[in-house]
Amino acid sequence: MNNKKLIKIGLFGFGTVGHGLYQLLHRVPEASLVISRVCVRDVTRHQEETPELIFTSNPREVLDDPEINLIVELIDDADAAYRIVTDALRRRLPVVTGNKKMLAHHLPELIELQKEMKTPLLYDASACGSIPVIRNLEEYYDNDLQISVKGILNGSCNFILSKIFNEGMDHAESLRLARELGFLESDPTLDLDGWDSLFKLVILAMHAFGVYVEPEKVFCYGITHMNDHDIRFAREKGRRFKLLGLAEKLPDNRLTLSVLPHLISRNKFIYSCEDEFNGVVIKGLFYGKQFLVGRGAGGHPTSSAVLSDISAIRYDYFYRYKRMECAGPLPQFSNDISFRAYVRYNTEDDLDLMQFEEIYERYVSDDYHYAVGRLNLRRLLDIREHLAERKIFVAAYPPD
Amino acid sequence: MNNKKLIKIGLFGFGTVGHGLYQLLHRVPEASLVISRVCVRDVTRHQEETPELIFTSNPREVLDDPEINLIVELIDDADAAYRIVTDALRRRLPVVTGNKKMLAHHLPELIELQKEMKTPLLYDASACGSIPVIRNLEEYYDNDLQISVKGILNGSCNFILSKIFNEGMDHAESLRLARELGFLESDPTLDLDGWDSLFKLVILAMHAFGVYVEPEKVFCYGITHMNDHDIRFAREKGRRFKLLGLAEKLPDNRLTLSVLPHLISRNKFIYSCEDEFNGVVIKGLFYGKQFLVGRGAGGHPTSSAVLSDISAIRYDYFYRYKRMECAGPLPQFSNDISFRAYVRYNTEDDLDLMQFEEIYERYVSDDYHYAVGRLNLRRLLDIREHLAERKIFVAAYPPD
Repeated sequence: MNNKKLIKIGLFGFGTVGHGLYQLLHRVPEASLVISRVCVRDVTRHQEETPELIFTSNPREVLDDPEINLIVELIDDADAAYRIVTDALRRRLPVVTGNKKMLAHHLPELIELQKEMKTPLLYDASACGSIPVIRNLEEYYDNDLQISVKGILNGSCNFILSKIFNEGMDHAESLRLARELGFLESDPTLDLDGWDSLFKLVILAMHAFGVYVEPEKVFCYGITHMNDHDIRFAREKGRRFKLLGLAEKLPDNRLTLSVLPHLISRNKFIYSCEDEFNGVVIKGLFYGKQFLVGRGAGGHPTSSAVLSDISAIRYDYFYRYKRMECAGPLPQFSNDISFRAYVRYNTEDDLDLMQFEEIYERYVSDDYHYAVGRLNLRRLLDIREHLAERKIFVAAYPPD
Repeated sequence: MNNKKLIKIGLFGFGTVGHGLYQLLHRVPEASLVISRVCVRDVTRHQEETPELIFTSNPREVLDDPEINLIVELIDDADAAYRIVTDALRRRLPVVTGNKKMLAHHLPELIELQKEMKTPLLYDASACGSIPVIRNLEEYYDNDLQISVKGILNGSCNFILSKIFNEGMDHAESLRLARELGFLESDPTLDLDGWDSLFKLVILAMHAFGVYVEPEKVFCYGITHMNDHDIRFAREKGRRFKLLGLAEKLPDNRLTLSVLPHLISRNKFIYSCEDEFNGVVIKGLFYGKQFLVGRGAGGHPTSSAVLSDISAIRYDYFYRYKRMECAGPLPQFSNDISFRAYVRYNTEDDLDLMQFEEIYERYVSDDYHYAVGRLNLRRLLDIREHLAERKIFVAAYPPD
């Protein structure tokens, strides 16, 4: 019942995850799994450090190598990754990638290309690192009626928020520590403004609901503008801020996506998901709630997910995107959704601009103004730039 | 890329899960998936309640029906289930089952039979209901170096313990409530003494480590003898009792299994897994810790897991039991393992009998004696009957 193929990997990128994969293969030796060639920008440095591998800076040398039968793409640059992945698929070379940004922008086309070329592209490492969210949505929860996928999709933000809420650090201090420990990118806005979470959410929504939503259409707002007033507010209410990506199907078959901080109360699974861990709550009509927690980043956890995909390809696994073909109409993406929000603002003009549907509470002091009320996602998307410029802080604040 | 087969199900059992499956198929209509015949003991009652299904009390009428191409076995009786499952596999009929007791006692033989007949047997519903633990161990974590699988595998015990530790109920009261809500079997010892957890643990160990351990060889001790002294002890230490199944590979490649209450501190994932939920922590060398939580019992969550298996069979999925064939020697099961324990005992004779390797703490008052020290699993297994007779309470008490 075993049909292991000999896999010769052409690897693109030898950063944290690429190097992690190399170490993992070293620890779990598999004669039937070898890295044939590695394409990197700086050949000399890598070749000196890891002389047993063959490095090149020319993608052709990997893609044209007739021995190589699997491409693993682990580079940072989304555009270059897109060229490598599509080039490989067109040559009928199966691909494993972890590039969430590239996937979030090109999924429909990449799904088509897989079908056309009858060649699989797997990417479980792209969302939540070591947590097998995509695989489970695709294979295990595929028959149930999905209601929502919600989660802490970015470990860096969760680390910062955990330091604040568990160890009483202030915002600036926790940011500094995250940077010191290498948890933040050199451009930290990808993490802090929620874009990284958004890319992952777009991928998860595809597998949970069969619907592709362009990242530009989703309201995405991170924790950059959170300040100590907000933190105190959360503490007073016995809650914690968590940056959540949420994809939810409403009873009228509309689908809504958003990325923003949520005020989470103690009785929620996600409340206890701390530090650099990711946590995802998947809801279905029959199985109820599932909660999956694991390391969302880092060389070893992510390379473990990459190896799971490599192994799956060896057993002829491919994503079937079953949700896209399910009976009945697919959900329709919509931003005409209102939700209960906490907003820290500066002036009355800010309030007017946000066009609250209702305001339940207002608080005004010399240096701190907030309102609790119902906001509309479409409106927030329209004024996103303005919110950021004015350093307004917005968070979902679900009732108890 | 889609190859849906028409599935005609022969269903054995129409209890909570069987009926849940029927409802689920009703809500998620799939023209290519139908229940052809249902074998039950009391045909008349079921036929009146669900006239659109064809009931029979004769297993032959299901197994001999040439139209039926999949057997779903959801009856209580482990011996009868064994006969149905083996009979079906010998006829090359794929089987989905949820019978943990039957599986725990017959796994090696059932694995052989699957290979011989080239016919799949899937049973993800047998361990942790809706949580896809088996599938993930089998398919996703299969390349990493597994370290341990540990979890709350029985929702009834977890419900009782949650009522005690969250709502301050006493032991007797929480038991009464669990019984009222239908969370306990008519024979509650299966849950309370840990046997249900043990069967699940044996199945998980097979998929995590490729090793079959007969249930009789594993020390299994539940919460039957827990009393209010123990509960107060846990509270004073800021901990909660959780009944855990644990399968762990030691650095010397020995494998240990056990089912017993653990004193869990607040910083552990499992501390917050409450009520009737199950929670499993899976550790691997590279991916680190994964934590999976979901409903472990109940008609709908379990039938959702059954449907996942049915769907998987439609896509020609089968368990490969990859761990059994991995490179290097398989771990060796051993009970020569000592661990830090809390023991409430009656007399000095009890203490002598338990043969502590070391005692770190002792407490003696008129009505309450306890010791904290190192105990050996083999010794505990040998004196299990005596422990139960003397109503001695034992729990793992890992250091902070």
